[in-house]
Amino acid sequence: MMLEEFTPLSLIQRFKASMRATAASVSLVTSTDAVGGFHGMAATSWVSISMEPPSMLVTVNRSASVHAVISSSGRYCLNLMRDSHSDILDRFSRSDMRHVRFDPEQWRRSTSGLPVLCGALASQLCTVVASFDYGTHTIFIGRVDDVILPETSSQVSPLIWTNGSRASLANPATV
Amino acid sequence: MMLEEFTPLSLIQRFKASMRATAASVSLVTSTDAVGGFHGMAATSWVSISMEPPSMLVTVNRSASVHAVISSSGRYCLNLMRDSHSDILDRFSRSDMRHVRFDPEQWRRSTSGLPVLCGALASQLCTVVASFDYGTHTIFIGRVDDVILPETSSQVSPLIWTNGSRASLANPATV
Repeated sequence: MMLEEFTPLSLIQRFKASMRATAASVSLVTSTDAVGGFHGMAATSWVSISMEPPSMLVTVNRSASVHAVISSSGRYCLNLMRDSHSDILDRFSRSDMRHVRFDPEQWRRSTSGLPVLCGALASQLCTVVASFDYGTHTIFIGRVDDVILPETSSQVSPLIWTNGSRASLANPATV
Repeated sequence: MMLEEFTPLSLIQRFKASMRATAASVSLVTSTDAVGGFHGMAATSWVSISMEPPSMLVTVNRSASVHAVISSSGRYCLNLMRDSHSDILDRFSRSDMRHVRFDPEQWRRSTSGLPVLCGALASQLCTVVASFDYGTHTIFIGRVDDVILPETSSQVSPLIWTNGSRASLANPATV
């Protein structure tokens, strides 16, 4: 009699499966280098950590190119993407599109010099007030200096990442 | 001639509006006190911070009752909710339902003593390896000791919180 083979998943495989079951909205974490160049990456690894003062936490892998830029400038912007921003997400996901990430028709420079995505659901401009290294990542805690919102009310349909791909909300609200 | 009044939003108002536009899946963060009692709260304020070793970060307001329990036990479990768990979310949102939060038909105790939600999309059992205070919150970094997944494949439809209320994905995947 043959017994069916069963290989239990390793802890890391189970952890990856559990993270694929989560859903999170995607922001472009951006910063500006010493000569004014724009840098950024797509991330779901951010949370609000305080309402007063408004503060955001973001974790960044030290191998990401934006890591050195945030460490050096001490500032970053979290640009919350709409589900209509698939083309922009492609530019930040594919290395062959690296040179077209910051299309001047889609981005502007804040008064403080940070890259702001035009048409984002919100842009949170932050100054790093603390950072901690853990494993492969750095935790940056940023005090929010300014928040840029759309000028007119619009549908809140954030671009969501789940199960390794993008998704949308079933019934987005309008605010 | 009357000029229409226009009061610009304060920074905190704009920050709150920006957070309402985000979407995140909800986990019940649970822990166990010194006499074996279960405690927990609903939260979206968690992110993965490392794949190897698997590690999760969660921020907890120091005024939350579960804060002291996690601080004291040094352990917590993140139970990822399904969108069919609205009734359980109610129990963790309403203080008048505090006494029925841990229905024995819905919860079990892990071998390490932590509260595990039966039917969760995933339960990540963690040991605190570092913590930092910031403002009103503590950041707990937990090394993931074990991950419990559903025994059979099922639809990945996490309970999502956006714009002050629950929501679902438009096209949940099956894994």
